[in-house]
Amino acid sequence: MAAQEGTMRSIRLEKEGSADNLYTVTEPIPSAQRGEVVVRVKASSLNFRDLAMLKEEYPGGMKPDLIPLSDGAGEIVEVGEGVRRFQVGDRVAGNFTKEWFSGRRPTYTEPYGSHSDGWLTEYKVMNPELLVEVPDHLTFEQAATLPCAGVTAWNALHGPSPLMAGDTVLTLGSGGVSVYALQLAKQLGINVISTTSSNEKAKKLKELGADEVINYNETPNWGEKAKELTGGVGVNRVVEVVGPATIQQSLKAVAPGDELSLIGVLSRTGDKIDYFDLFGSASTRTIGVGSRQDFENMNQVIADKNMVPVVDSVFPMDQAAEAYRYLDSQKFFGKIAISHD
Amino acid sequence: MAAQEGTMRSIRLEKEGSADNLYTVTEPIPSAQRGEVVVRVKASSLNFRDLAMLKEEYPGGMKPDLIPLSDGAGEIVEVGEGVRRFQVGDRVAGNFTKEWFSGRRPTYTEPYGSHSDGWLTEYKVMNPELLVEVPDHLTFEQAATLPCAGVTAWNALHGPSPLMAGDTVLTLGSGGVSVYALQLAKQLGINVISTTSSNEKAKKLKELGADEVINYNETPNWGEKAKELTGGVGVNRVVEVVGPATIQQSLKAVAPGDELSLIGVLSRTGDKIDYFDLFGSASTRTIGVGSRQDFENMNQVIADKNMVPVVDSVFPMDQAAEAYRYLDSQKFFGKIAISHD
Amino acid sequence: MAAQEGTMRSIRLEKEGSADNLYTVTEPIPSAQRGEVVVRVKASSLNFRDLAMLKEEYPGGMKPDLIPLSDGAGEIVEVGEGVRRFQVGDRVAGNFTKEWFSGRRPTYTEPYGSHSDGWLTEYKVMNPELLVEVPDHLTFEQAATLPCAGVTAWNALHGPSPLMAGDTVLTLGSGGVSVYALQLAKQLGINVISTTSSNEKAKKLKELGADEVINYNETPNWGEKAKELTGGVGVNRVVEVVGPATIQQSLKAVAPGDELSLIGVLSRTGDKIDYFDLFGSASTRTIGVGSRQDFENMNQVIADKNMVPVVDSVFPMDQAAEAYRYLDSQKFFGKIAISHD
Amino acid sequence: MAAQEGTMRSIRLEKEGSADNLYTVTEPIPSAQRGEVVVRVKASSLNFRDLAMLKEEYPGGMKPDLIPLSDGAGEIVEVGEGVRRFQVGDRVAGNFTKEWFSGRRPTYTEPYGSHSDGWLTEYKVMNPELLVEVPDHLTFEQAATLPCAGVTAWNALHGPSPLMAGDTVLTLGSGGVSVYALQLAKQLGINVISTTSSNEKAKKLKELGADEVINYNETPNWGEKAKELTGGVGVNRVVEVVGPATIQQSLKAVAPGDELSLIGVLSRTGDKIDYFDLFGSASTRTIGVGSRQDFENMNQVIADKNMVPVVDSVFPMDQAAEAYRYLDSQKFFGKIAISHD
Repeated sequence: MAAQEGTMRSIRLEKEGSADNLYTVTEPIPSAQRGEVVVRVKASSLNFRDLAMLKEEYPGGMKPDLIPLSDGAGEIVEVGEGVRRFQVGDRVAGNFTKEWFSGRRPTYTEPYGSHSDGWLTEYKVMNPELLVEVPDHLTFEQAATLPCAGVTAWNALHGPSPLMAGDTVLTLGSGGVSVYALQLAKQLGINVISTTSSNEKAKKLKELGADEVINYNETPNWGEKAKELTGGVGVNRVVEVVGPATIQQSLKAVAPGDELSLIGVLSRTGDKIDYFDLFGSASTRTIGVGSRQDFENMNQVIADKNMVPVVDSVFPMDQAAEAYRYLDSQKFFGKIAISHD
Repeated sequence: MAAQEGTMRSIRLEKEGSADNLYTVTEPIPSAQRGEVVVRVKASSLNFRDLAMLKEEYPGGMKPDLIPLSDGAGEIVEVGEGVRRFQVGDRVAGNFTKEWFSGRRPTYTEPYGSHSDGWLTEYKVMNPELLVEVPDHLTFEQAATLPCAGVTAWNALHGPSPLMAGDTVLTLGSGGVSVYALQLAKQLGINVISTTSSNEKAKKLKELGADEVINYNETPNWGEKAKELTGGVGVNRVVEVVGPATIQQSLKAVAPGDELSLIGVLSRTGDKIDYFDLFGSASTRTIGVGSRQDFENMNQVIADKNMVPVVDSVFPMDQAAEAYRYLDSQKFFGKIAISHD
Repeated sequence: MAAQEGTMRSIRLEKEGSADNLYTVTEPIPSAQRGEVVVRVKASSLNFRDLAMLKEEYPGGMKPDLIPLSDGAGEIVEVGEGVRRFQVGDRVAGNFTKEWFSGRRPTYTEPYGSHSDGWLTEYKVMNPELLVEVPDHLTFEQAATLPCAGVTAWNALHGPSPLMAGDTVLTLGSGGVSVYALQLAKQLGINVISTTSSNEKAKKLKELGADEVINYNETPNWGEKAKELTGGVGVNRVVEVVGPATIQQSLKAVAPGDELSLIGVLSRTGDKIDYFDLFGSASTRTIGVGSRQDFENMNQVIADKNMVPVVDSVFPMDQAAEAYRYLDSQKFFGKIAISHD
Repeated sequence: MAAQEGTMRSIRLEKEGSADNLYTVTEPIPSAQRGEVVVRVKASSLNFRDLAMLKEEYPGGMKPDLIPLSDGAGEIVEVGEGVRRFQVGDRVAGNFTKEWFSGRRPTYTEPYGSHSDGWLTEYKVMNPELLVEVPDHLTFEQAATLPCAGVTAWNALHGPSPLMAGDTVLTLGSGGVSVYALQLAKQLGINVISTTSSNEKAKKLKELGADEVINYNETPNWGEKAKELTGGVGVNRVVEVVGPATIQQSLKAVAPGDELSLIGVLSRTGDKIDYFDLFGSASTRTIGVGSRQDFENMNQVIADKNMVPVVDSVFPMDQAAEAYRYLDSQKFFGKIAISHD
């Protein structure tokens, strides 16, 4: 018998095209079989990836009628036979790339939202190894923003050549990954130069600890400006969340031998890259979110430092479509969450 | 008083343009001051970089009338006061990037041949910290090929994400770096796929241990072929010595998340790189030869395994210009050395 | 409905004390629930740990009536709903420390044989994440020796300071871990000095690639002898499987700054360690087998190099008690396996 | 002609036994030969090692009549021909282990004070590669405390398994290494538990950022107390500066799989170590100060964070013997420096 009886709400996406294709269904609450846990999902969060699906721009395609969203957090409400990793009451989130524990990413994984049911639901049955405990001081809405944006930012700062205290990272704008990168960098003693489009956002970035902020509208050559701000040496890493439209400036900003962390597909077009701009310049490395080990390492820092992720706004579950539209407006700062209460 | 009295021959390059601008001078043999050593240079070797200077294609420019060549090996013949690192009779080579010991490359270094006197001379006075001992079993001609091509290949296989035994590397052609990469990889249990232009060279590559050889004339889509040969996974690293003309195929060959080691400027033109070919693909990392630590690590393996570098031909010192021309012919396999006996 | 119907044999250990306390039971074949797989266990293998339980010397204690043995290999015969990691027919083994994927070892794990059912059975239902695929060229008996001895040896050679090609490792005797360490080291280009008690075993060790073998009966001061054999520098690692009785010699053998990998509890008594023997000497690190990542890395090398583990003898399942007694005799070389056919 | 003419004061130690064996000599100021620099030594500092020499307890022995002290800082006043690494006016300190750049420590080095002239002098001629630039914000007295105590503490926190932000380190007492470890740890986001003997010192440790302080007089079982303070998990590292007298408590404090960094020889006697206290417990690693790379990495953090080393007191050069006696009193907190002005 399940710990939780009755029904629950799930939101499903009929097909690509529009947030209007989201629909609510009532489904039976799942129960834990042997070795499984059931999570009462308390909150979820949106990422640019979710919007890309609506816009039919998501590279891997998607299956119809899945529950969307890769990111969610909640509480363990049922523990199947033989589970030792968690107990009822533990607060957890799912790792973005389900079965990636460490090392090379597995190829057989079925991403949440695009190939398997995601987190925009009230209850979710899980293999406990695909979950991590979230820091105690976070609300569920805050915790729900960790899996994609948080781990991506962590991985961007680490990887095979982790930044050291005293190094400098350049972040672009004030989306979820960039704000996480800024906040995590400061916990690790890393200096931050941020770009932004407005003085209001600049003020917020400063409050979060940015050492320098460049308004890219006022300074279109912000890559060179960032380099100047490091005494001409160049930044040690760029958390490159935009892509084709910014990569040329990013290449100007970074010190030879250091790294561009490629995350971005916020832009679709821009000048192509000349081999000789790449050669002799920084390394490039695509960040595909990260492993469970990355997530756990990040959580240790967030927990220990009581770092609070920046949640711009929280939508109730029945206004999920509004949340998508707000994400598309690009008027937010940090992360957008959905409450499942 | 110097251990070695009298005069020596040096070859100097008057200016860029042609190997005809090389000239021989007779100079006094230097003597060791406190903390210095004098090396009797027994051999040197040529790299594509040296040819690029002649062709006025070397990016950093060059000073006139310097002794060319970054690579040389010889015997310590004099040891200044207070030197403990070496003794008379020790067999040494200079690290390519003089003052690079480990970590980030120093910016103040003055490269051999382009900004300071190189190794095409009979005696050279040195700070002993800029030298490493070479493996006992190597001739001086063989040892003289280690500093640039050997260390570059070593660094390409290592770096922040070193290849493991059982991984696969793709090498392009049969120049010095590629042949070193093949030979070193085999010592480390790494599988090798090599490309080449002729069946004769293919045979030599196989003899040196290449697991697979692709004739790129017969298989212009050699990048996809290399991927196929790994069961569709992709190679774990490409030692990309050519550049613009091959990078598109290299990107096809490599597994996402693995690495393109950018070394090559053998070609000057090719299709530009689309951001979305780079994003989601392999990391790219420019190899700028390597540190003294890299050199010493490589030497441990070469010494322990009695690995013998492939020297295609040895020119006498007074035919240095011929050696340059032979390098330009691209008919060689492995390295070209100059004997200073 | 289960893929496999009917009953199977399991062997259980009533209590510590003697191999006579093993008894055979007939049990229903388990079936896979959602997210699970069923393994037809084809072989298992014994480790010193299993013997220590019989002798009431196992530090963590044990529960009565469990199925013993931490090591087994078999074939997937049933795959539960939603499993993507494996398919029916895949050949697998379990990781020794079930839920250890990478990083720090989890504290909540319940070891096979002592706290949860082990592998001396015909069928076993598992969370697929706790299994790894085994190399194709291995028999099940060979594959069954990988989890404890193989991974321990791999971890001893790696860890935070992995040995490099050209380094030297010292192995003690010809038990499972030592023979694996010898074989794996040779695949990685690492030199091996082995100790042994007889000329016959010395011959076998040489055949497996040992560069030097020391007979410790003839050379009681084998630690200094090993150091001598490295030209007085010291070995770079000792795979210390014996413990109190050998640690003093091991400390003599190893180079300052290098590492003693502590595995051994084959001996219970010996001289205590003086702080000043430890200080200024090698690092010490206890090897607690290893993570799934370690296991997968090792398998890559074993598969790629067609390395064949040394199985001394194979007992049929109904002679399991004999296998324990043979292990206790210390007359074997390498590993002892049990066939479940 | 030297940049600096005339004479300078040096202090030399006639022989072991007592600070009374120190004597002042007037010597010619050295001048830089090719490739050398001259440092005007502005300050030096004392370490326990220097006291051990007086007490005839220094393991490597010492030569008579050398200039003592391994640690000093000053200004470049002359630059020999061909030096690019430094310019006149640069502020530098010497690395403790002269020729250790990275990787394994060289065996041929001649330590300052025991086998070659140290830093208790007004001018020193040096190979510039043996020097590092010191952070701008430090006085020379502060900078003079970096080479031994600072780098040792840095290495203790790093090494092959560097601590992460959110980890916990245990430091013992308030000597130079311990206070540096505390200060550096806090810059890196690492938690610190410190032991001390008095409430007054406890207050200072708290002011420097110690998260918890244990008075070891009041809590003789401080190892278990430290473990308790981590919620029973154990600390991730002990900076073990005392040795035989404290190692048993340190072993109680540390989490299995984490590390004891062995530095200490402050005590000479204590209970010997049982193999089974070491086995299954933390790794042990002897810290022999560190490489130039370690020193430069540390300086990046100290410079970036404006970290100020704790100098307890500064003695004038002609009261060097008093400085030794004060060190022996064990009444200080942090470091003792000598001003050479």
